[in-house]
Amino acid sequence: MKRTVVTLGINSALQILRGAHDEGMQTLCVCLSRHSELYRRYAFIDRVEVVADYTELPALCARLDPATTCVVPHSSFLSRLGSVGIAALPAPYFGSREAAVWQEARERQRQWMAQARLNLPRVFRHIDEIDAPVVVKAGGGMRGDNFFARNQREFERRLRDFRAQQYVIQEYIIGVPIMLHYFASPLSGQIEFLAADRRYETNVDSLGRIPTENQAGLQIEPTFVRVGNLPVAIRESLLSEVYRMGEALVAVSRDLFPPRGLFGPFSLEAIITPSQQFYALELSTAIVGGTNLFINGSPYSALFFDEPMSMGRRCSREIRLAEEAGRLEQVVSLPAGPRG
Amino acid sequence: MKRTVVTLGINSALQILRGAHDEGMQTLCVCLSRHSELYRRYAFIDRVEVVADYTELPALCARLDPATTCVVPHSSFLSRLGSVGIAALPAPYFGSREAAVWQEARERQRQWMAQARLNLPRVFRHIDEIDAPVVVKAGGGMRGDNFFARNQREFERRLRDFRAQQYVIQEYIIGVPIMLHYFASPLSGQIEFLAADRRYETNVDSLGRIPTENQAGLQIEPTFVRVGNLPVAIRESLLSEVYRMGEALVAVSRDLFPPRGLFGPFSLEAIITPSQQFYALELSTAIVGGTNLFINGSPYSALFFDEPMSMGRRCSREIRLAEEAGRLEQVVSLPAGPRG
Amino acid sequence: MKRTVVTLGINSALQILRGAHDEGMQTLCVCLSRHSELYRRYAFIDRVEVVADYTELPALCARLDPATTCVVPHSSFLSRLGSVGIAALPAPYFGSREAAVWQEARERQRQWMAQARLNLPRVFRHIDEIDAPVVVKAGGGMRGDNFFARNQREFERRLRDFRAQQYVIQEYIIGVPIMLHYFASPLSGQIEFLAADRRYETNVDSLGRIPTENQAGLQIEPTFVRVGNLPVAIRESLLSEVYRMGEALVAVSRDLFPPRGLFGPFSLEAIITPSQQFYALELSTAIVGGTNLFINGSPYSALFFDEPMSMGRRCSREIRLAEEAGRLEQVVSLPAGPRG
Repeated sequence: MKRTVVTLGINSALQILRGAHDEGMQTLCVCLSRHSELYRRYAFIDRVEVVADYTELPALCARLDPATTCVVPHSSFLSRLGSVGIAALPAPYFGSREAAVWQEARERQRQWMAQARLNLPRVFRHIDEIDAPVVVKAGGGMRGDNFFARNQREFERRLRDFRAQQYVIQEYIIGVPIMLHYFASPLSGQIEFLAADRRYETNVDSLGRIPTENQAGLQIEPTFVRVGNLPVAIRESLLSEVYRMGEALVAVSRDLFPPRGLFGPFSLEAIITPSQQFYALELSTAIVGGTNLFINGSPYSALFFDEPMSMGRRCSREIRLAEEAGRLEQVVSLPAGPRG
Repeated sequence: MKRTVVTLGINSALQILRGAHDEGMQTLCVCLSRHSELYRRYAFIDRVEVVADYTELPALCARLDPATTCVVPHSSFLSRLGSVGIAALPAPYFGSREAAVWQEARERQRQWMAQARLNLPRVFRHIDEIDAPVVVKAGGGMRGDNFFARNQREFERRLRDFRAQQYVIQEYIIGVPIMLHYFASPLSGQIEFLAADRRYETNVDSLGRIPTENQAGLQIEPTFVRVGNLPVAIRESLLSEVYRMGEALVAVSRDLFPPRGLFGPFSLEAIITPSQQFYALELSTAIVGGTNLFINGSPYSALFFDEPMSMGRRCSREIRLAEEAGRLEQVVSLPAGPRG
Repeated sequence: MKRTVVTLGINSALQILRGAHDEGMQTLCVCLSRHSELYRRYAFIDRVEVVADYTELPALCARLDPATTCVVPHSSFLSRLGSVGIAALPAPYFGSREAAVWQEARERQRQWMAQARLNLPRVFRHIDEIDAPVVVKAGGGMRGDNFFARNQREFERRLRDFRAQQYVIQEYIIGVPIMLHYFASPLSGQIEFLAADRRYETNVDSLGRIPTENQAGLQIEPTFVRVGNLPVAIRESLLSEVYRMGEALVAVSRDLFPPRGLFGPFSLEAIITPSQQFYALELSTAIVGGTNLFINGSPYSALFFDEPMSMGRRCSREIRLAEEAGRLEQVVSLPAGPRG
């Protein structure tokens, strides 16, 4: 019987399920009712299950046969279920469940990246330490809310209007943003750099089209809401460092959560400075929306594969090859506690 | 005998004719002499006819056999011929001729979008109503000429230098621009969302690379001349709304110009605000230049098709399938009056 | 015996070698030790040779059998070896070695573009001539270092801090940047326009995301370091001029360095102004990094080829076809002096 790939209908479900279909699997999309019409449009989705809330997913998974199911998560999947929900999810899961724990808390994620010798923006623990422009990022449920401050005084003034209780004060790094998308294959033991993009954010990506003199009149408060992504090819001489960072993150993860550490898709958000240094901002340990640009392949996937290979398809390819080789346990992880 | 797809050599003729060729048809490109060398370079164009002026197209079409011809229009085709020329064009025409009428006049287009419950920028009828920053857009033959004003005083000052006689005063919506490209299939009754892009406009897209202090010295008057397009993938959670808008535009069109309403390719220009709302700016009822990015397929066309499917090819695919099913009359429209 | 395509491991080596592999050739990558791990990751690279310095390449080439070797250069290859090194390189070389001479010196390159009737920014020989905003570009080894000045006074002030001894003072053209990528086929006698992109430069491409009021506080000195590229589709009505420029550059080159002139890949960096004029900034006579976006094909290559055709593959395709037709001498050039 065919294996069924399951994911939540949001974020990058389309490429995950299209990729599963292309690798010969059945597909199941679990989504809110307001998105069910969307997912029903696509012939490669065999089944759409509507839930009132994403928290119903575990119960739904418990009813599926673990012998023929595999959950393929994405970054919204992780944030919706949380690392506790991920750990207990009663279904075979593509990737490491412990990675979700280490991604979730900013401090742990920072420790991970620091141990991998990635350049990181300085973090200021107290207002008195601020000696450079900063970006203040909300934590917990408010993630995505940011503000910018040039100095201590501006920080103080803007903090008054900031709704988030938890936040981190990061040095503002001047340079261009980039998202790097990797796949770590447990079967080959290799890392594949598969794509790069930059976010398309509203309203901050509209500023560059508004003349200086008009910006004053409009009094725009910059926001960083991702509504899309733009494809990027990266300067080839930077690829060695791109791979070094990816390899180091995987190597360190084996110390942090042994024995398997991080595997499957992961993405790094970074800034590239004029001296061509990468500064790492954030790490995602599952498929992210930026890879939706490359459902029909990327310039980098074309270096490894002869057919269009999305990140979603890459996951199902690994599952299929593992299954064919009788090594499925290498690419999936089982729930932490006793089965529900 | 093979059907011949005809279009004007400009805008998106290359993808239309390449797509027709890929679907097994003959191709005819009608162009000005200054572009004939361009279109003669491409092996998939079987015949290039030079005209002194686009208004010669109807006479040229009248000489073709309607039994084996099909015109596939694009947005420049519509603006060059006008809805009156489109209505009378003596050749089978892919898409709705009445859609051109409703697209042409800003007020009708706005009514159409309003009935489809799309968010629209407010329109100010008189200078006294202006209570927010506005963009003033020329109508008629000057379309493409715009200016920006922060308030009534600036509006008054800039209007003096504005050459257009007809114009509309629209609220300026702060957010990022996006173009959404759809195909409404009369055969399947389905809408396919096939691509997204944003325009690449000179000089406004150069502003973001000029430091604030230099902008002052350069005294740049922003212009919005499209010279290219950049590909975008859209956040997956926004796709339900993308489809809702497309479906609503098609549904409303069946009331506005029954019975068939809008079918074939259409595109929506919108702004996405920080609250992830779409504000619709303009509707095109034929292929637009932004889809030239996807001559070898887009991430979204790859969700429906196994081969590279440009918007141009999608049109010829529909014509071919309709012909094979003996349902050609469903996908083409005939001239309004008696044949010329 | 199979022909081996050789290139330096940097810039666009991946597409060159992947393309050679796809055309049935052997591949050899010559690189610095810090990049050897990168190139060893890819199965299509048959051999990686590590050199301590790029100047070792000629000696390495001298040891290869010229009957079964072909060097495919790229723009970093040209700048590393210089036109003198290129002229003497003891191996069959894809493209014109004399083109490298004409590209190298800014004055000659300018003469070439001027003879081809390309629009060029004015050049000011002396500070007193400056009557418009200018960009000052370093020559020789400092190429890539630039500064901007609004007038004579600002020019004078900034020149004091400028480290380059050689420089050129160019009028600053307001418009959007574009890179145009061509292939001139000696076999067909035709030019193929294969792709367009724009550079992604740090930090200048970060400015547009920083509100005016914050830019003041950050005191950003704009830099133009290319770290990536973004794909662009160009307005179809501009393609006639795109081809005219490419044809003219090739035609003029036959006068400048007869009899063969320029052939193979070349790229033009330009600005498009609001009046839709191209202003040519720089010409490259080999593959450039921007084409890395199109390793799996571009919208424009799809108009000529049914398979994914990168610029790198296009070179090997020409070599293969030439060899099959017994016309290899038409597509390669031999070293200038006696063999080393």
